[in-house]
Amino acid sequence: MNKIVTVGREFGSGGRELGRRLAEELGIAYYDKEIVTEIARRTELSEQYVQSVVERKPVVLYPIHVGRSFYPALDAAAERSSAVYAQQHEIIREMADKSDCVIVGRCADYILRESKPLRLFVYADMESKIARCRKKAPEQEHLSDKKLARMIKKIDAERAHYYFFYTGKKWGDPLNFDVCVNTTHTDIKALSKAIAKLCE
Amino acid sequence: MNKIVTVGREFGSGGRELGRRLAEELGIAYYDKEIVTEIARRTELSEQYVQSVVERKPVVLYPIHVGRSFYPALDAAAERSSAVYAQQHEIIREMADKSDCVIVGRCADYILRESKPLRLFVYADMESKIARCRKKAPEQEHLSDKKLARMIKKIDAERAHYYFFYTGKKWGDPLNFDVCVNTTHTDIKALSKAIAKLCE
Repeated sequence: MNKIVTVGREFGSGGRELGRRLAEELGIAYYDKEIVTEIARRTELSEQYVQSVVERKPVVLYPIHVGRSFYPALDAAAERSSAVYAQQHEIIREMADKSDCVIVGRCADYILRESKPLRLFVYADMESKIARCRKKAPEQEHLSDKKLARMIKKIDAERAHYYFFYTGKKWGDPLNFDVCVNTTHTDIKALSKAIAKLCE
Repeated sequence: MNKIVTVGREFGSGGRELGRRLAEELGIAYYDKEIVTEIARRTELSEQYVQSVVERKPVVLYPIHVGRSFYPALDAAAERSSAVYAQQHEIIREMADKSDCVIVGRCADYILRESKPLRLFVYADMESKIARCRKKAPEQEHLSDKKLARMIKKIDAERAHYYFFYTGKKWGDPLNFDVCVNTTHTDIKALSKAIAKLCE
């Protein structure tokens, strides 16, 4: 069975960077935006559209895990959103079957649960997440700390909703992960070397 | 500055075993019950009594971190409980000053915060904690799973109360730790080898 590491992360926690560096350290594949590109190719939707629905609040009215005989009729947007999730599910499975890899976000910890991945969750305090956002996106320099904090919370709330919708589980609950890592005041590069040792 | 690892843990999660094995792997000192023995020696209270108040709900009426000019008069039990905490605080600081070490529980993450310890938190799901308790304490075999679960929750509630009382922080909140480790369905021996690499 391939070695799979999934990385859930709070927005601004540096989880994406940690995932990428971890894959480099381990010399294994790294999948993040590649998944969006592949979904777009298979569904013939634009990458921009796929990105806009991935890990955002889904459009349909009832969670998929709630059994219902009579589903409400889905509108076109809801159908596209479901198609994107279905493709994503398939692509993530294919990637995990192909080789050892690190996959960031996208309920991969749940989708691949039978492959027993090492499930990481990356988090940090708000001050540190704001600082990281400022460093990564200077175009947001006009935003006050308060507005940035609100944006970060909103994105994480969408991820939580998305995660619950497709898995029936609470996003960020430590029991859904094997190791949770706090990146507050931490150099991600050094941290990823240490976490790589944990994955070996 | 010495390398200090503090281990917070849910009851039944195997955190104590992980701490001990971690210290063995790293070849550094391990402090757990040694602290109780030393407190008993210095306070002339019995080890049994010290054990009974350490990490249990303190007796005084107001948390120490709440500023009050007029403290309610402490009774003898409350005074002993405070004396035990004060000694524990001092002993933990001395141990951390002496050499590299692993310290389990006892608010050590908070007491030693200025020494920047690596703060671990060890947790597991209830099923796994019950199984671990049964293995470690066969004398509890007459207890049903439900009763064992109630006992585990009660001990953790006392730890949470104790931690909040002396630190003003929520026990088990991932933000108070650097790394949180899930021991559900995990062999502690193998896990401690991996965590040791993270500490190096």
